[in-house]
Amino acid sequence: MTHPTVRISDIGQYLGQTVTIRGWLYNKRSSGKLQFLQVRDGSNIVQCVIFKGDVSEDLFNAADKLSQESSLIVTGVVKEDKRSPLGFELGVSDLQILHVPAHEYPISPKDHGIAFLLDHRHLWLRSKRQNAILKIRSELIKAIRDYFDQKDFVCLDAPIFTPNACEGTSTLFETDYFGDKAYLTQSGQLYMEAGAMAFGKVYCFGPTFRAEKSKTRRHLTEFWMVEPEVAFMNIEEDMALAENFLQEVVGRVLETKKEELEILERDTKFLQNTIKGNFPRVSYTDAVAQLQKLGSDIKWGDDFGGDDETILTKEYDRPIIVHHFPTAFKAFYMKENQHDPKVCESMDILAPEGYGEIIGGGERETSLETLEKKIKEHDLPKEAFEWYLDLRKYGSVPHAGFGLGLERLVTWVCGLHHVRETIPFPRMMERLKP
Amino acid sequence: MTHPTVRISDIGQYLGQTVTIRGWLYNKRSSGKLQFLQVRDGSNIVQCVIFKGDVSEDLFNAADKLSQESSLIVTGVVKEDKRSPLGFELGVSDLQILHVPAHEYPISPKDHGIAFLLDHRHLWLRSKRQNAILKIRSELIKAIRDYFDQKDFVCLDAPIFTPNACEGTSTLFETDYFGDKAYLTQSGQLYMEAGAMAFGKVYCFGPTFRAEKSKTRRHLTEFWMVEPEVAFMNIEEDMALAENFLQEVVGRVLETKKEELEILERDTKFLQNTIKGNFPRVSYTDAVAQLQKLGSDIKWGDDFGGDDETILTKEYDRPIIVHHFPTAFKAFYMKENQHDPKVCESMDILAPEGYGEIIGGGERETSLETLEKKIKEHDLPKEAFEWYLDLRKYGSVPHAGFGLGLERLVTWVCGLHHVRETIPFPRMMERLKP
Repeated sequence: MTHPTVRISDIGQYLGQTVTIRGWLYNKRSSGKLQFLQVRDGSNIVQCVIFKGDVSEDLFNAADKLSQESSLIVTGVVKEDKRSPLGFELGVSDLQILHVPAHEYPISPKDHGIAFLLDHRHLWLRSKRQNAILKIRSELIKAIRDYFDQKDFVCLDAPIFTPNACEGTSTLFETDYFGDKAYLTQSGQLYMEAGAMAFGKVYCFGPTFRAEKSKTRRHLTEFWMVEPEVAFMNIEEDMALAENFLQEVVGRVLETKKEELEILERDTKFLQNTIKGNFPRVSYTDAVAQLQKLGSDIKWGDDFGGDDETILTKEYDRPIIVHHFPTAFKAFYMKENQHDPKVCESMDILAPEGYGEIIGGGERETSLETLEKKIKEHDLPKEAFEWYLDLRKYGSVPHAGFGLGLERLVTWVCGLHHVRETIPFPRMMERLKP
Repeated sequence: MTHPTVRISDIGQYLGQTVTIRGWLYNKRSSGKLQFLQVRDGSNIVQCVIFKGDVSEDLFNAADKLSQESSLIVTGVVKEDKRSPLGFELGVSDLQILHVPAHEYPISPKDHGIAFLLDHRHLWLRSKRQNAILKIRSELIKAIRDYFDQKDFVCLDAPIFTPNACEGTSTLFETDYFGDKAYLTQSGQLYMEAGAMAFGKVYCFGPTFRAEKSKTRRHLTEFWMVEPEVAFMNIEEDMALAENFLQEVVGRVLETKKEELEILERDTKFLQNTIKGNFPRVSYTDAVAQLQKLGSDIKWGDDFGGDDETILTKEYDRPIIVHHFPTAFKAFYMKENQHDPKVCESMDILAPEGYGEIIGGGERETSLETLEKKIKEHDLPKEAFEWYLDLRKYGSVPHAGFGLGLERLVTWVCGLHHVRETIPFPRMMERLKP
């Protein structure tokens, strides 16, 4: 007789019935006539209890010899088990052993160094904690896309290969392109501006690259970024959009990934605050004054260092929006404030708990003449921007947008120390494998 | 008095009311006391009718001088207009002109060469046809992700930078990686196999790269691929999954993108057939015999050429699944058929109407020994696959998956001749701009 084959996460629907699950041995213990197999299938972990009297002696002995990550097909009756997080266990009636590893599984419950774990990333993904982080990442990806799709944005993939090294080549990865040089994109924004003029509201969400010789806990060479851009949107609306967006995606994880957040032992207080009410808005000028009071040696006109972001965000119980940064250190396309051109219509959202910047955005310059002047001032090659300037030649309109770094968001939501665990196969300055 | 600012696609909800829309002049004509402005805002196009008696003379004259792609804010009453595809028009009461291009818009309704249009891709996106194609692409992206998300797959992004040139470097883009060499991914499959062992069901959906010196209408150097991979799945289930998946995503477009398909003048007969009933399953061996009858000089053991795919698919009124290809020309990881090792557990889905392959997949080899032998036979560097072999050392299980090329799918669904219009900023051998 065959029984329904189900995923572990669904077995609660089969209480009292016999089902088959397929997976891998995560852990086990035995006590005389009983063996307790913790079996994982990627959806969850269930305890499978083998009672000596219920199966053949051969099978009982074979089960006793199973090692970690043996692959199994287990059939049994679904029973309530209030002590387990899942709430259910399986009373085993049959067990099919597919593959018993000949060697000991390299990742044991004991502590391993981070280099060892990253070398074994293809296996480390199987651990409870990594599983939880990457499921939260997957849910955030879906929440991000749902947010923009439901608001009728068109998903417009930005190109990865870009022809010109717009702002110096020092942090760009370069490749030979049939005899020419191509650079890997650092941002899809300029392309999204073209998209906003064609579709009104667009976003791109793809990998971006930065060849920074930087080994901080916030840097990856390859990371995913979502970049919405909207025609006829100003900086105020941009801040409101980014705030609402962040509240929605954080809210989704709080709602659907409770179990994963528990596995990570995440204190969700700040995440709960995030989804209620507005984010404090602090002008750059006020933020600098506040930082000086808190002991920073920052001066007006300096960009925030990572330390400044940490100090500042620890003063708040939810994300904050810092706006109107000095024009001088922002990109050439940022629109100057009409009352005070020393500052521009820019904004960053800083995550609380010391996490710092996760969103950066602003309103873009609309005037052809001003942009041409800025390109000159920034010493950029004008021919590289001819196509971009076309957007101001033919029906220029106010527009704004922002970029959110996915891995920084996951790091904060999961409460992690380092960004490297937030992407399936991290790429860093000294890490290109596996 | 301010009126609600709405998107053109929504104005039907405001029949009889005064609304404001914001967009660009797509086309216009006038007849004495009336001017008809076709205004687009990215969501749709609406006819705005200006009656001389309803606005000031200055405004009427200014409207008369508007050129294509002038940016506008138009206020007016929503009226029924059964002759227009939208079903509504706007009786203008006020018009604000934001920007009138100083130069003639380069893309006029007259015919342009493809090179000119691709050079102006950033503007060409605004045309009705390109807008329709890329909205269908956006909907397909969403349908693809929804399909896997709803089936509880984890979205697991594959890395773009890969350390080893697994199968020769001739079609790989290479970059300097802090003194090492890195290659841009051609497929996330091997990484998805690691993911399937960790999460049960995973998919990646991201850009992939091929440095082919090929100028056919089916080739891009940068294109997006979705690759699901499932533990405990065999080739039969893989074919069923791919079939159901393709039916769902094509069904979604037929349901939600009727207007766009009409703009493209797409005959949807074959798409309608696709979502009904099963796809014919044809073994490679039978397909070769059929092709020979149809006049092809293909011999058993040859891979299909593009022409063979065209000839074969024209014999069917919906997609077909060709399965059990010769082991010899498939990748090393393909599982051999246990009854006939000359063929392997592989399958391709070929789109009808001559479009050819859009999906390729199969069941993967599970035996460590067989894989080691294959890697040797294929003359591949074993050290590059050590991590991959780990997946067979620790709890090897049957598993399968497939890959679908997004741009080939969009090409077929839209009924296009060339793949270049199916991605916002196409990259081809001789095209890296804008």
